[in-house]
Amino acid sequence: MFEQLGLIGCGLMGGSFALAAKRAGLVKRVVGYSKSPSTTEQARRMGVIDVEAPSALLAVSGADIVLLAVPVAATEATFKAIRHLITPSMLIMDVGSTKRDVVDAAQRVLRDHVSSFVPAHPITGKEVSGVEHADPELYRGKQVILTPVEKTNGAHLSRAQALWEAMGCHVQQMAPEAHDAAFAAVSHLPHLLAFALMHGIVNQPLGKDFLGLAGPGFRDFTRIAAGDPKLWRDVLLANRLELVEQAKIFQRSMMNMLKLAEDGDGDQLQAMIEQASNSRAHWRMGQKGK
Amino acid sequence: MFEQLGLIGCGLMGGSFALAAKRAGLVKRVVGYSKSPSTTEQARRMGVIDVEAPSALLAVSGADIVLLAVPVAATEATFKAIRHLITPSMLIMDVGSTKRDVVDAAQRVLRDHVSSFVPAHPITGKEVSGVEHADPELYRGKQVILTPVEKTNGAHLSRAQALWEAMGCHVQQMAPEAHDAAFAAVSHLPHLLAFALMHGIVNQPLGKDFLGLAGPGFRDFTRIAAGDPKLWRDVLLANRLELVEQAKIFQRSMMNMLKLAEDGDGDQLQAMIEQASNSRAHWRMGQKGK
Repeated sequence: MFEQLGLIGCGLMGGSFALAAKRAGLVKRVVGYSKSPSTTEQARRMGVIDVEAPSALLAVSGADIVLLAVPVAATEATFKAIRHLITPSMLIMDVGSTKRDVVDAAQRVLRDHVSSFVPAHPITGKEVSGVEHADPELYRGKQVILTPVEKTNGAHLSRAQALWEAMGCHVQQMAPEAHDAAFAAVSHLPHLLAFALMHGIVNQPLGKDFLGLAGPGFRDFTRIAAGDPKLWRDVLLANRLELVEQAKIFQRSMMNMLKLAEDGDGDQLQAMIEQASNSRAHWRMGQKGK
Repeated sequence: MFEQLGLIGCGLMGGSFALAAKRAGLVKRVVGYSKSPSTTEQARRMGVIDVEAPSALLAVSGADIVLLAVPVAATEATFKAIRHLITPSMLIMDVGSTKRDVVDAAQRVLRDHVSSFVPAHPITGKEVSGVEHADPELYRGKQVILTPVEKTNGAHLSRAQALWEAMGCHVQQMAPEAHDAAFAAVSHLPHLLAFALMHGIVNQPLGKDFLGLAGPGFRDFTRIAAGDPKLWRDVLLANRLELVEQAKIFQRSMMNMLKLAEDGDGDQLQAMIEQASNSRAHWRMGQKGK
């Protein structure tokens, strides 16, 4: 399907993509670049990439498909580094977990070449990072959201969709704004809440004693609070507009429930809990809303 | 150790206690009462109790140990129903997950007999309720918090501690207020947050679509949102004072983080996330604070 993948960022996400694409016969050759030379070298030794590129620009040279698998905060700088070698026939994708900022950066930096760019968010990951954890099965069976804009070339979009599907993914398209609102609600805000809860507890005088009493509910609720600080700083910054909107909605629900508890209005409080509880009890991961 | 257990409430918690105490040879005979006659009858058929009592009062008659295993909201009424048959030599305990309200009710209703009452909170449970799920292993290896007050008889307190330990529990003592603050922080507030998040999402026009994109982080974070609405209404009402205090502390952390994100202050934001992330990464369930 493709001759040469230019891979920028050979970590968990990029490395797993290269392995999966090669295994499925979707790309013949992978030229890779990572900011850290030791990562690039390790990726080559592991067979994740075939050739080491000394720069992001040279990773793009001669490629018919390019994947940016860098932290979202590095997207704009990466576009700047590669734009001079982008051609109209080249398909460019990213794997970032926010999309409006990535699309904005692409429009600012790539100008007309933005038609080559198909923004992508594969919903997958591991608790660990680094090329040493690259896994050709990381994407199989997972959802991938593509967020094309008006200028996106239709042929590139179709090829992007076919590529992810050939890797075993379920692909859907969505506007960048809708994507970011959705992930603010179901991922970024829950992370913020879990971080804030932990932060609030450990900074109390008796916080450590409290933690000694916490049980399995707390364990599951706060699991995401152990997330990588740099990565989550970037995500919360990149999606702050939608995050703030979702936080307001959440706060209204929380303040309502607290008020009902303070007023001793058990009936209304129970009604709100019931709606939440029923919704959660009927939710199944990966099952589309009706 | 005890001749006769008067069990009020033959559901999951009470039924499991009766099974565990009998198996460990700690009580010889169990006289049980549940609000629903069919539950009492089922408990007897299952061998959870030996004799059905027609009322809470009659379950207490002749007992040297009494366990209240009723919803926290029913504690005061239960005390009223049984107080006329309480004797100074009787050990009375509960298993409620809030303690200040239970202690207050005991002091109001039991008067001098409050010395017989040793408030207890065994930190255990199941996602399911009812005597049909009663399990003699429910308490083994779990923490039990006893929250005695000044008037609590020391001999009763020692016997209570020995009893739980003989059932394989790790027992610690704590003031009722400290107990309620701790559980507000590590259990009741997380439940409120999970309920409020679900409530906020499902009441948005695109909420169902958002839920279709939610992944494993959301799944674990919201697991507790599926909790029993009546039970959680009672807990949030019973512990509202401490809940409101903990919610304030949480909100300060959340608003700080949101402000830092809005201001684009990545360094400070990362520092807050790092503290939360490190605390969570080093936390182990059941490991005491240092």
